[in-house]
Amino acid sequence: MEQTKIILDENEMPKRWYNVLPDLPTPLEPPLDPKTREVMSPEALEPIFPKELIRQEMSSDRYIDIPKEVLEIYRLWRPSPLYRAHQLEKILKTPAKIYYKYEGVSPAGSHKTNTSIAQTYYNMKEGTERITTETGAGQWGSALSLACNYFDIECKVYMVRSSFYQKPYRKSLMTLWGGNVVPSPSPDTEFGRWVLKEQPDTPGTLGIAISEAVEDAALNENTKYSLGSVLNHVVLHQTIIGEESKKQLAKVETYPDIVIGCCGGGSNLGGIALEYVKDKLEGKHDAKVIAVEPTSCPTLTKGEYRYDFGDTAEMTPLLKMYTLGHTHVPPAIHAGGLRYHGDSPIVSKLHAEGLIDAVSYGQKTVFEAAVQFARTEGIVPAPESSHAIRCAIDEALKCKQTGEEKTILFNLSGHGHFDMASYDKYFNGEME
Amino acid sequence: MEQTKIILDENEMPKRWYNVLPDLPTPLEPPLDPKTREVMSPEALEPIFPKELIRQEMSSDRYIDIPKEVLEIYRLWRPSPLYRAHQLEKILKTPAKIYYKYEGVSPAGSHKTNTSIAQTYYNMKEGTERITTETGAGQWGSALSLACNYFDIECKVYMVRSSFYQKPYRKSLMTLWGGNVVPSPSPDTEFGRWVLKEQPDTPGTLGIAISEAVEDAALNENTKYSLGSVLNHVVLHQTIIGEESKKQLAKVETYPDIVIGCCGGGSNLGGIALEYVKDKLEGKHDAKVIAVEPTSCPTLTKGEYRYDFGDTAEMTPLLKMYTLGHTHVPPAIHAGGLRYHGDSPIVSKLHAEGLIDAVSYGQKTVFEAAVQFARTEGIVPAPESSHAIRCAIDEALKCKQTGEEKTILFNLSGHGHFDMASYDKYFNGEME
Repeated sequence: MEQTKIILDENEMPKRWYNVLPDLPTPLEPPLDPKTREVMSPEALEPIFPKELIRQEMSSDRYIDIPKEVLEIYRLWRPSPLYRAHQLEKILKTPAKIYYKYEGVSPAGSHKTNTSIAQTYYNMKEGTERITTETGAGQWGSALSLACNYFDIECKVYMVRSSFYQKPYRKSLMTLWGGNVVPSPSPDTEFGRWVLKEQPDTPGTLGIAISEAVEDAALNENTKYSLGSVLNHVVLHQTIIGEESKKQLAKVETYPDIVIGCCGGGSNLGGIALEYVKDKLEGKHDAKVIAVEPTSCPTLTKGEYRYDFGDTAEMTPLLKMYTLGHTHVPPAIHAGGLRYHGDSPIVSKLHAEGLIDAVSYGQKTVFEAAVQFARTEGIVPAPESSHAIRCAIDEALKCKQTGEEKTILFNLSGHGHFDMASYDKYFNGEME
Repeated sequence: MEQTKIILDENEMPKRWYNVLPDLPTPLEPPLDPKTREVMSPEALEPIFPKELIRQEMSSDRYIDIPKEVLEIYRLWRPSPLYRAHQLEKILKTPAKIYYKYEGVSPAGSHKTNTSIAQTYYNMKEGTERITTETGAGQWGSALSLACNYFDIECKVYMVRSSFYQKPYRKSLMTLWGGNVVPSPSPDTEFGRWVLKEQPDTPGTLGIAISEAVEDAALNENTKYSLGSVLNHVVLHQTIIGEESKKQLAKVETYPDIVIGCCGGGSNLGGIALEYVKDKLEGKHDAKVIAVEPTSCPTLTKGEYRYDFGDTAEMTPLLKMYTLGHTHVPPAIHAGGLRYHGDSPIVSKLHAEGLIDAVSYGQKTVFEAAVQFARTEGIVPAPESSHAIRCAIDEALKCKQTGEEKTILFNLSGHGHFDMASYDKYFNGEME
């Protein structure tokens, strides 16, 4: 039997990130200024981002070296393991081979640390003393708290209210690493106070939380804002996932036919998939790439591809992306990390160009897949990641019908140890 | 810089467990019958344990092969990584080299799966359809639920009441893997009902929970009882930890001067240490082995070495061990897994013979170490495991005083993702 875990040694860890921007079939549309609607200059972003990240956001370099100090932290958990899902395959009785890259081995429990460490490092280099951010399910807030702890930067997290109460121990985790967490909307910003007054019962959204974090960064000295998904530099930092997975699959002499990632802001999908998209663009291979989203927040499957704001208060630049509209309030589902009205401009472009497919699932069928996964592979998956599991299982079951021995790769972006309340709801029949 | 993670490939995983019994300086005293106080025959244990585990409990074979089916499950997470604690060493400014074996990579979050998989496998082979057990912090109950899920056996867990309410999501985790969990004392057993009547406000103890689980197994058909620590066969199954760690240290050409494990029932300590105790007994090396316990339940440091019951209701055989007395009720500290009045007969014998040292710490200083660890190494440790961290840090600080470059190895037996309420108490200044 082929080995269960395909591991890489530390010296096999990639030393650079892959930047898809110069390889895109058509150039990415530039961000527009929220006030003038003119193309935004890099300088205009400097009040909220450090220069190096703005450079990366717009870079035409195909590869960007990972700094030594970032690699030193990465190796606390990277390279992450690639698993062959023998137990799951057995239960499904599928001829497909299922592999999953497991990003839950990071201390914060998800892939988000790949970019939080990088972003915080560049902020530290440029003298930032305080970073603000939003978080949905708490994965990103945890990752940023951990990173700020390493580079001795103060961290303020605006956590979407519905998740704040659904996942109480996420706050404890951020606190442990020194993060300061408040439910959003909060009384700490002008926009938060306005929302609290207008919609006192709102479950909150990522859009609102982003507005609060951006306002805070713009108004406070030595403070920058940090985003956990969507932007090009965030997707860039996640490409280490895909590159590692390709090396690992090569060790067992295989290449995926299908590559799957859940998709909220698009960074974990981009992280696993861009390495394979590159091969498609070069005509070397032709893996099918699938973005999986919740039916309750169907950005790629039902949104429009147009310029929109990244936040509710219209403070961020406008990005060309699939969007449900920046004032959209998705229901408070358990996969809080996927409740975003927009999507990564890179993923949006690739979807529009037909290089990335998209599907959506309801949360009950997603939890069903999560439970089947936990009972076979052992690992308890995060609700977000379970969207990718649902799709991988369905693709494997299609192979059972057709008899095809496809190789399926998905990104298990995080564990669900802080999502047990959601599992309780599922088992108690209280899930909508 | 030396690598951070020292990993083994699946084919380097040990294929047998090490049984210390034939190597002990003096033979282990046999268990006594709870009623007659005569030496207990193996047959007398058959109502509650499968035959193969009874054989292992008394075996004089130095090595016991790990069944293929057990290895197949082990490799979902084993070999577990060995870490060099570079970040912690840096903060401590110590010349010591600190290594830790990380058992929290198992899906249930601790070393306990090493024995739960094995025990459940042998039960399955002998036709057991239902297994009962107790759990303190919930690590063991989770591990047994996971294992029963793999071998299609029903699982009933009596969880010490104080932990049941301190760590609510442990129950969710057991439920996810199909376990049936009740707080102990419970109305489900005669002994439980008696305790509920006599001491309605008891926080519960492992001793009480064991009595309930044993009663349940003895009275119900095709039901066996399973213990997560203390017994010889449990310690046996944990020796894979120590053997892996020795192989990993050999890869960086080192051998520990000090080996540290927290100690409740003794299985994680035995697991990491017996491989090195073997070398001591053979005169090959002379590592100092340290058992770390809570001051509030100081079995080795303040208990008596004598025959005592393993449970409160006097249903289990009497074992020769260090004990605080089987009716002792330790305070409801956060390291629920260490709240046991007795200890492993093997660890007790080795302590009595001067081969294992013991120290104890209060929980505040233990959490202080846990926070320092989480802020350097990233990983959030379980309160139990944090006792080993406290001791490792103190030994490293001694080296700073003396300038000695000692090699310290400790077992990080589990993560603390389900212990965040305890961290909250620590940060809120509510910890006693």
